[in-house]
Amino acid sequence: MISLTRNEIESLIDLPQTVQALEAAYLASSQGNFNLPPVGHIAFANGADCHIKYGHMKGDSVFVIKIATGFPQNSIHGLPSGNGLVLVLSAHTGQVEAMLHDEMVLTDIRTGLGGAIASRSLARRDSQNVLVAGTGEQARRQIEAHNTILPGSLSFKVWGRDATKAKALVNDLAQGIEATQVDDLETATRASDIVITATGATAPVIKSDWVQPGTHITAVGADAPGKQELDIKLINRADIVAVDLVSQCIDHGEISHASRAGTINATDLVELGTLLTNSKLGRTNPEQITIADLTGIAAQDIAIAKAVLEAWQSQKDL
Amino acid sequence: MISLTRNEIESLIDLPQTVQALEAAYLASSQGNFNLPPVGHIAFANGADCHIKYGHMKGDSVFVIKIATGFPQNSIHGLPSGNGLVLVLSAHTGQVEAMLHDEMVLTDIRTGLGGAIASRSLARRDSQNVLVAGTGEQARRQIEAHNTILPGSLSFKVWGRDATKAKALVNDLAQGIEATQVDDLETATRASDIVITATGATAPVIKSDWVQPGTHITAVGADAPGKQELDIKLINRADIVAVDLVSQCIDHGEISHASRAGTINATDLVELGTLLTNSKLGRTNPEQITIADLTGIAAQDIAIAKAVLEAWQSQKDL
Repeated sequence: MISLTRNEIESLIDLPQTVQALEAAYLASSQGNFNLPPVGHIAFANGADCHIKYGHMKGDSVFVIKIATGFPQNSIHGLPSGNGLVLVLSAHTGQVEAMLHDEMVLTDIRTGLGGAIASRSLARRDSQNVLVAGTGEQARRQIEAHNTILPGSLSFKVWGRDATKAKALVNDLAQGIEATQVDDLETATRASDIVITATGATAPVIKSDWVQPGTHITAVGADAPGKQELDIKLINRADIVAVDLVSQCIDHGEISHASRAGTINATDLVELGTLLTNSKLGRTNPEQITIADLTGIAAQDIAIAKAVLEAWQSQKDL
Repeated sequence: MISLTRNEIESLIDLPQTVQALEAAYLASSQGNFNLPPVGHIAFANGADCHIKYGHMKGDSVFVIKIATGFPQNSIHGLPSGNGLVLVLSAHTGQVEAMLHDEMVLTDIRTGLGGAIASRSLARRDSQNVLVAGTGEQARRQIEAHNTILPGSLSFKVWGRDATKAKALVNDLAQGIEATQVDDLETATRASDIVITATGATAPVIKSDWVQPGTHITAVGADAPGKQELDIKLINRADIVAVDLVSQCIDHGEISHASRAGTINATDLVELGTLLTNSKLGRTNPEQITIADLTGIAAQDIAIAKAVLEAWQSQKDL
């Protein structure tokens, strides 16, 4: 059995290969080619919980079980609040082939790349100015992923409720990434081609009035009931609303609020996997406002775990 | 993180301590002191599948996730059809504390001991003659567990559809266990104080007419829909029918057939955990026929994993 640490896993991530695997997973998911049983969940005191996401892509030689824990109180003890591991098992014999002690880094990476894949699909190709709302690990991953896979050279503005954290994130970014911290969210939003929201907000952060025609917004913060980053008016105003998984986004994604308000329904949405194979469903003119609501899907967890395992095997074969 | 192999786990099993832990788990289960979310399940071709059982005993410092795979076709390749591992995680921080690569041995042991705990609770104290129907791993575990924890010296008769396998099991038993293979199931049943059924049967193996007053039967084979080892008439005739978990046994245990036939219902059953604290609900005279229907419950998986971890820790502290 293969057992890999977080550092080993990170060093095995080949970005172009991983992007390809994630795109294939979005596609397969939208075509119904995954067997994804309901997510397991157990709750503890103080809002702590554990999710078990698992599934199998039809025809694959492996299936994947991801165990992710969220213990908000951990920060008091200086421990990360999120943790977890990913098991890869043979779909032919049931035996555990690999144990990826990724401590959530695979989720962080796939979420970052998923956001950049969505922006690449929907933003104007001449997009340059990118605003990021949020200062956490996922804000950093979104910046890195967008900087790597979008065409052209991007310039990032980082806004956070806590300016100190936003400054710290800007200073922490890899060399070669052009980024500045901003205090005025409205002005930054008005000046941006792409807006990424990666906050833990439970009320709208980005107002519809601020968003100029032609803007693309990728929202990844709303991954559980009660979270919200965008004005409902903005959702209603958008020309295209893409989601990673219709059922999941309607249940607890960014668009769940508009859905509950009755101003948007499933037929108004396009899944990212569908968009990737049919670009006619995407942006058709530079004035359109486009939104991608990403909640994170098990298909991505499966795809990135497989990609790591394949990278490990080809490295071993060298 | 602690990582233990199957051999290490087996060497850490302290029988009296494990029996105590399992009894406490039955008790806590019957008192509603477990948080046991629905079992996760994913199916593959050729009847293969994977179960994810997980839960937390209220107040415990750890919670447990058991991953068990069943791939019937494995035997063609000389691999065990059942496999799996057990993760023990902190209920305070969510971190993985231990990974028990038990390859199903913990399930085998807890099922064996569970059967013996049930027989010890319900069989006549002067029981000597034990019939075992079944020749697989679980038949062996039942014999060993009964021989270890029941009072008096027991004499085992082993019956199997395949006499060669029954002989092989008898020869394979540890020295000091008195056992013989038998061909005539009816005669053996008539002469037994305790009957254990541990077969994969899907139709009754033990007929009601064969069972003498005073007999106790522990049935562990029916752990999934469609399986059956006992005549429905025998269930109806029994003075006491104990189960490990009412909801589970009514759904897919031995008594599910009588339940569906409408001849038994939940109020006719007593949970083993309840029986262990209130012996008045158990056998009150030597002529009674008693039955224990055990489907295997996640509470036991949690208890035995914890017991292993505690044994590892006290060995380390020596």
